[in-house]
Amino acid sequence: MSPSPAGEGKTTVSIGLADALNRGGRTAAVALRQPSMGPVFGLKGGGTGGGRARVVPEECINLHFTGDFHAVTSAHNLLSAALDSHLHHGNALGLDVRRVTWHRVLDLNDRALRRMVVGLGGVTGGVPREDRFDITAVSEVMAILAIARSYEDLRARLGRVVVGFTRADEPVRAEDLRCAGAMAALLRDALMPNLVQTLEGSPALIHAGPFANLAHGTSSVLATWAGLQGASWVVQEAGFGADLGGEKFLDLFCPAADVWPCCAVLVVTLRALKYHGGRPAGALFEPDPQALEAGMANALSHARGLASFGLPVVVALNRFALDPPGETELALRAFEQAGFPAVTVSAYQDGSRGGEQLAGAVMEHAADSEPRLLQEPGLSLEERLERVAVRLYGARAVELSPRAARQMQECRRHGGGELGICVARTPFSFTADPTRVGRPVDFVLPVREVHLLAGAGLAVPVCGDLMTMPGLGRAPNLERVELEPDGTIRLA
Amino acid sequence: MSPSPAGEGKTTVSIGLADALNRGGRTAAVALRQPSMGPVFGLKGGGTGGGRARVVPEECINLHFTGDFHAVTSAHNLLSAALDSHLHHGNALGLDVRRVTWHRVLDLNDRALRRMVVGLGGVTGGVPREDRFDITAVSEVMAILAIARSYEDLRARLGRVVVGFTRADEPVRAEDLRCAGAMAALLRDALMPNLVQTLEGSPALIHAGPFANLAHGTSSVLATWAGLQGASWVVQEAGFGADLGGEKFLDLFCPAADVWPCCAVLVVTLRALKYHGGRPAGALFEPDPQALEAGMANALSHARGLASFGLPVVVALNRFALDPPGETELALRAFEQAGFPAVTVSAYQDGSRGGEQLAGAVMEHAADSEPRLLQEPGLSLEERLERVAVRLYGARAVELSPRAARQMQECRRHGGGELGICVARTPFSFTADPTRVGRPVDFVLPVREVHLLAGAGLAVPVCGDLMTMPGLGRAPNLERVELEPDGTIRLA
Amino acid sequence: MSPSPAGEGKTTVSIGLADALNRGGRTAAVALRQPSMGPVFGLKGGGTGGGRARVVPEECINLHFTGDFHAVTSAHNLLSAALDSHLHHGNALGLDVRRVTWHRVLDLNDRALRRMVVGLGGVTGGVPREDRFDITAVSEVMAILAIARSYEDLRARLGRVVVGFTRADEPVRAEDLRCAGAMAALLRDALMPNLVQTLEGSPALIHAGPFANLAHGTSSVLATWAGLQGASWVVQEAGFGADLGGEKFLDLFCPAADVWPCCAVLVVTLRALKYHGGRPAGALFEPDPQALEAGMANALSHARGLASFGLPVVVALNRFALDPPGETELALRAFEQAGFPAVTVSAYQDGSRGGEQLAGAVMEHAADSEPRLLQEPGLSLEERLERVAVRLYGARAVELSPRAARQMQECRRHGGGELGICVARTPFSFTADPTRVGRPVDFVLPVREVHLLAGAGLAVPVCGDLMTMPGLGRAPNLERVELEPDGTIRLA
Amino acid sequence: MSPSPAGEGKTTVSIGLADALNRGGRTAAVALRQPSMGPVFGLKGGGTGGGRARVVPEECINLHFTGDFHAVTSAHNLLSAALDSHLHHGNALGLDVRRVTWHRVLDLNDRALRRMVVGLGGVTGGVPREDRFDITAVSEVMAILAIARSYEDLRARLGRVVVGFTRADEPVRAEDLRCAGAMAALLRDALMPNLVQTLEGSPALIHAGPFANLAHGTSSVLATWAGLQGASWVVQEAGFGADLGGEKFLDLFCPAADVWPCCAVLVVTLRALKYHGGRPAGALFEPDPQALEAGMANALSHARGLASFGLPVVVALNRFALDPPGETELALRAFEQAGFPAVTVSAYQDGSRGGEQLAGAVMEHAADSEPRLLQEPGLSLEERLERVAVRLYGARAVELSPRAARQMQECRRHGGGELGICVARTPFSFTADPTRVGRPVDFVLPVREVHLLAGAGLAVPVCGDLMTMPGLGRAPNLERVELEPDGTIRLA
Repeated sequence: MSPSPAGEGKTTVSIGLADALNRGGRTAAVALRQPSMGPVFGLKGGGTGGGRARVVPEECINLHFTGDFHAVTSAHNLLSAALDSHLHHGNALGLDVRRVTWHRVLDLNDRALRRMVVGLGGVTGGVPREDRFDITAVSEVMAILAIARSYEDLRARLGRVVVGFTRADEPVRAEDLRCAGAMAALLRDALMPNLVQTLEGSPALIHAGPFANLAHGTSSVLATWAGLQGASWVVQEAGFGADLGGEKFLDLFCPAADVWPCCAVLVVTLRALKYHGGRPAGALFEPDPQALEAGMANALSHARGLASFGLPVVVALNRFALDPPGETELALRAFEQAGFPAVTVSAYQDGSRGGEQLAGAVMEHAADSEPRLLQEPGLSLEERLERVAVRLYGARAVELSPRAARQMQECRRHGGGELGICVARTPFSFTADPTRVGRPVDFVLPVREVHLLAGAGLAVPVCGDLMTMPGLGRAPNLERVELEPDGTIRLA
Repeated sequence: MSPSPAGEGKTTVSIGLADALNRGGRTAAVALRQPSMGPVFGLKGGGTGGGRARVVPEECINLHFTGDFHAVTSAHNLLSAALDSHLHHGNALGLDVRRVTWHRVLDLNDRALRRMVVGLGGVTGGVPREDRFDITAVSEVMAILAIARSYEDLRARLGRVVVGFTRADEPVRAEDLRCAGAMAALLRDALMPNLVQTLEGSPALIHAGPFANLAHGTSSVLATWAGLQGASWVVQEAGFGADLGGEKFLDLFCPAADVWPCCAVLVVTLRALKYHGGRPAGALFEPDPQALEAGMANALSHARGLASFGLPVVVALNRFALDPPGETELALRAFEQAGFPAVTVSAYQDGSRGGEQLAGAVMEHAADSEPRLLQEPGLSLEERLERVAVRLYGARAVELSPRAARQMQECRRHGGGELGICVARTPFSFTADPTRVGRPVDFVLPVREVHLLAGAGLAVPVCGDLMTMPGLGRAPNLERVELEPDGTIRLA
Repeated sequence: MSPSPAGEGKTTVSIGLADALNRGGRTAAVALRQPSMGPVFGLKGGGTGGGRARVVPEECINLHFTGDFHAVTSAHNLLSAALDSHLHHGNALGLDVRRVTWHRVLDLNDRALRRMVVGLGGVTGGVPREDRFDITAVSEVMAILAIARSYEDLRARLGRVVVGFTRADEPVRAEDLRCAGAMAALLRDALMPNLVQTLEGSPALIHAGPFANLAHGTSSVLATWAGLQGASWVVQEAGFGADLGGEKFLDLFCPAADVWPCCAVLVVTLRALKYHGGRPAGALFEPDPQALEAGMANALSHARGLASFGLPVVVALNRFALDPPGETELALRAFEQAGFPAVTVSAYQDGSRGGEQLAGAVMEHAADSEPRLLQEPGLSLEERLERVAVRLYGARAVELSPRAARQMQECRRHGGGELGICVARTPFSFTADPTRVGRPVDFVLPVREVHLLAGAGLAVPVCGDLMTMPGLGRAPNLERVELEPDGTIRLA
Repeated sequence: MSPSPAGEGKTTVSIGLADALNRGGRTAAVALRQPSMGPVFGLKGGGTGGGRARVVPEECINLHFTGDFHAVTSAHNLLSAALDSHLHHGNALGLDVRRVTWHRVLDLNDRALRRMVVGLGGVTGGVPREDRFDITAVSEVMAILAIARSYEDLRARLGRVVVGFTRADEPVRAEDLRCAGAMAALLRDALMPNLVQTLEGSPALIHAGPFANLAHGTSSVLATWAGLQGASWVVQEAGFGADLGGEKFLDLFCPAADVWPCCAVLVVTLRALKYHGGRPAGALFEPDPQALEAGMANALSHARGLASFGLPVVVALNRFALDPPGETELALRAFEQAGFPAVTVSAYQDGSRGGEQLAGAVMEHAADSEPRLLQEPGLSLEERLERVAVRLYGARAVELSPRAARQMQECRRHGGGELGICVARTPFSFTADPTRVGRPVDFVLPVREVHLLAGAGLAVPVCGDLMTMPGLGRAPNLERVELEPDGTIRLA
């Protein structure tokens, strides 16, 4: 469902489910995204589950891991360097320096790089232009890594990447800059999925890390394929709500991977229900049945959205130690009344045992089905966007800014085939306004701009104000990290 | 000796020597620096030796290898992010935004980042200031990685790093920004030396990669220690000439590592001799005995400089297939006449066999000796610099700009103990002017500025114009790199 | 009425009216704004009337005139220099460099200065920050010059000018920077109105030049007072439509000047009527009675707006040589039917003779009245804005962005007494969207931000995208200007 | 002579001399430069003489005067706007944005504009590039205004102005941008000299204001011509020492104006003598005959330099109330002994009476002579520079930086005929180092860069670090300026 600001424990539930399936005699793997170091050192502090439902070794997975993010960063920035070098050496391709759409990336929260001017210092310093750094997780290279099916596919997609436009509005691509081969070489090892395990020994595939609000939000095609080769069940986490990571997994990832799930699990919590029932974020563990009831509209809307794809849906109520006693039943009953099987999960506290109910429900309801996509093949970009916004988000209409409308045209002309719509939007609301929690109705979805990710095969409508580079807070997590003389990494 | 623009094959000679020692029944390892990806994709195309004297797997070592450079980049830039976040959140430490000395780094050749303005975009974009990206190889974090003796030492050095000054000219350190622990955590695995092997199976330690013109130019203390644990001979390469990497290895690295070599090998080539005898760079393989003879002054000056440290010196004439026949003898004789044993090396063509003469000469002349440092402990910074410039480079005097003089004072006040002098200078001349080849006399060494690397324990006098971020040329190496469908990396 | 892109000749009509009043035996003066050099060298080419209804000497009035604009530029930029010097010398007032609201000005069309970064170059170059140049006509100093009643008032207003805010959101003023006295000294001579004459010898007061879309759009209080001392009729032009210059003249200027007009003249043209009836801008001289009729809604809305202030309204249909014959009568009749006396003017072609009908109508209908303000004293800023938007523009509601709402609060807290609302908006529509011509209904007026002009006593809600610095076109007027050897200025 | 930091009163002496000549029955006028507002509001506080030797009305002359500086500023910046507009509209001329040499100007001390980036904000904001503002007094337009002989000459010179270079190193001129006609039109009235008077009623021509350290440092050709039409004696002030303003007046101005003086007056003071004898700037009014004697070397060097042009030289010792008694005689005697007639001037205290001795000496020694130029026609730029540096400054040699050498070539290729050398250099020393006072010997004059002023007909070698935009100090003069309610400008 739409999360509360603290997050609802989807990773923990995913791990708990896989562990419980294995405990129940099935062979199951879990497929997760690699955490970004930006949030690790910022607020969030890691992305490896929690309590007894974790993947290990945590401090490796949370920091460099096998270097895939670094490879993405390097490949991305190599293209930037090639681009600026091309400008410096005479700009034979005629790029307009104001129409460069390829920015640099770092896997850090670094606010000061959100907007900058590069190429200063006279003739030896390149050509002046405005630029910015985004966080690596939103790089198109990351999206490509997650969606590529082979070295050949990877290489071809990198070549199609559009870096900017000429004064005559023609696109310039990585191939034109003769840089795609080197980028692919830098990504060679990163394309291979990484295998670790959960605390209980279930195999865990951790590979690629696109954010679900700005990008498509799931681990890689190759990781899913690897999981399916060795396990009969693969539990795959999708970022944020069913409206974001969920929709993108089904509409964008599954066709690319030629897979279709047999069951959807919707993770909900009492605190998210109350948050979306209007309770303030700081007081979500206090009892408030009214807020809880009000928040059901949000969760049910996600459940119905998932069901509309033709999938069995199971609701997993992720429990916290501080949850008030009576509310759990209240919530479970409400889901059942609405026709959705619902169980509790306590994998954080109890490991695989805490996921047994969920494993049972999943095995009971799982069923093969024909893919029923929202973004059906053959639809235009506008139709795809309209369907997502109206049918799934419940918007009255989509409103493109003049700029966005123009960019939609460019996507059509230069996308190189059929693109998928990958909405960039706040995860905290069905609308573009993060303060409109719950189940808003009668709203318009405003699209500020549309980015063309020709290599990833996506058109990204940006709705509302979205930061592509997070910032560090006043007392970030990094201040608590210490390296002991024996090599232990400790959190103060 | 001072190189010609194409390089003289020191890595190849080092590998050949280790292979030959092993072939001769000794146990020998070679200690090398990790190549930077900047030059790999720029002009140079790699740093793993050549021909039959190579370390493998090359394409891994030349690209991400074990991720150490990425760890340095991340640790370095995390401090930048913390610094800019500190400015954004009110600048409690009172840093002057114009006196920030800690810049960002990337392991790329990216000219457009040489000079930039960050922190733009209003209140949410940080605080505006001028900044730049250097290449990772010149990061102080790289120098610390190479010189640290333990996790504890690493952690403490990172804390001492100076990032800038307040309006009252007081230094602000990584510790003040509470960032050193997290930086150390990011470097934990990178501190461990990397073991690979040569084509012939000799162990090769490849660890850290400071440039020798801008930084101290040798692989790490821990790599040397690791080599000495398993081998009775460790061949360690130092960057550029004996005046740069050589002096720094002896004066800075050896005291830090508590080691002292038993023999110095001076690598020379006919083409470098002719280059420093005045022949143009494009015509060095044509016979020119006169130029060769004139260039001897350069090589002999390096040999005598090494001898002044109390070391046996062996000259290794690295042979190229295109070398004109008679000149080899001419050169060998000249060295012998000057009192230096000299042999030829053909490891590129012949592997260990090509290094046998050199191995023999080294074993013959090697002898233990007491360290005789140029930068003797107890000398002031000015005295250290004067000794290096006058005794080793042959300068008449050192000339500090007013700014450099002021910075020397700052180094003394804020260095935190005795600093070493690590000159940043062109490798192509004993002077600060790369066009003055050979053995110039009667020159003054101008020092433009002096950088304080309090964490590495270095004061870096910058002589002449030096780029800390290389640029890509008109047809860089990266354009030739291709990834094949089977995962092979190919050079077109 | 709302203009067409080419302008409707208000200056010409104003001059013709004054000339005709004098011809008819009255003593009349005309009060005009000084043209800005930006448009003179850009597209517009001057602001001194046209044909036989002109003020002279034109080339002087259009260029430097008596230097008043230069004085405004100098006084404005002196404050900028004092501000940046204050930052450089330690920023004792604690200004937040990201919250500086005082930008620099030049009397030029210079697109490249719309957004810039200043204070670069290290410690000697000031403190880095983002800044911009606006055109002098929109400077608050220009507004103050136009509204000041005395040297004392001028000096006090300049002291109240807010230049930015501290991190604690406290305003910093020109007085705090000790700069207001020097600014006033620079404006001493500029405060005196300038007297020239029309081609027919009527006195013309030309003084101050605030734009009517971004500022309050009328010549100065002192010029009006000077005119009233020597003439029994003062014809004062207000910029753009009755919704912009008209409303501001009545609501903001008249209370400041303690004057109230006895008659309002609404200038209309056939081409503006057709433009606002939906005809494209390039084809307005072709006959199109339907468009003309449709456009009446716009003009009548202006007329009714003026009448709501309690004023007699006379419609002046300014004729062009290319006007199609029959349409004039059509238009006149429509106004008469709606209850507004309407006459034609041909002062461009015929000088004072061409203004006789208008002079007659004005003399017939003029009558003293009590001021009936839309922005009644005692109303809050929000109420004033609401009244202007809803009652005059016909908006359904006003919508403040979160930023604008916050700035409204700041205006209330730091405005220093009762401020007037001075809407910044496109002149081509009653809405914030220049393409919605005619008489739009059912629209919301979006306010992006609100500027505090504490010295001028104004709060300026900015509606939609507005350029505060124009740009030069592809073939600007300046290319046609030539100075002959005899000192004649010639237009090619 | 070379001044002390406080200035020696050349303007006062010039006025006193003219007043005394008139008092003695001659008809005399004085020709002065218009003061720049930058220093007026910064440190200096005005440039209209002092005490009883002043030109009036001071507050007008010191502020806007007749607007000439504003006209120069406008004309200069119009060209900048045209240039940036040309870049924006496709850059048909192929200007390299990094090789634009035409910067903007303002008549202010504004440190933050010394280095900036303009053209930001995306496609609508022009093309990004580095730029700066200089102070108006150093604009080439100011130099052209001072040297132009007619409207025709003005117009032609403006057309020749070089604004930058293409990638192929071809110059782009104001004419190419079609802007020179409009610039000339803006300067039409400014080209006319301004006539005011001294306190005693002598005519004073005040026109143009180029600085003498960065530009050529004298009032205009047309002002001199106007003076000579109405007076038999014209006293013309040249800025700073005889080595700067003096040399430029004789070598550059006189040939342009077809005039040659009949007498040179060298202004000296006891305080400047002692300053150049090594006494610190803060203690110059205390007696110190030794320093005074030591400082004579500086003054005599100036006197001999003037004499080498073939001119009679009279030394005017300008007296201050605080001068110690005995030193005056000492100084006068020393000049007489060296063969230069010397008298005291007390015009500040006594008006024309205080200038009588000087007037007498001038009339006694004045004599017509043939011009004997240092920069003889036909010499190359290098020869001209060498002559000025070696013969006049006493340098051992000139040292061009590689950049300066390249720019000298550009001056030769693109100067459009014979250019004059106009050295930019500190006024406080014969060398490029302001701390080397007195009469330094055995020094080299380093030339950092050479600016081409093709419109003014000058090549400007820049020696050492020179600020082209001054900054405001911690408590600038502007803080003391106040406008009283009656319009009086008062200094607190």
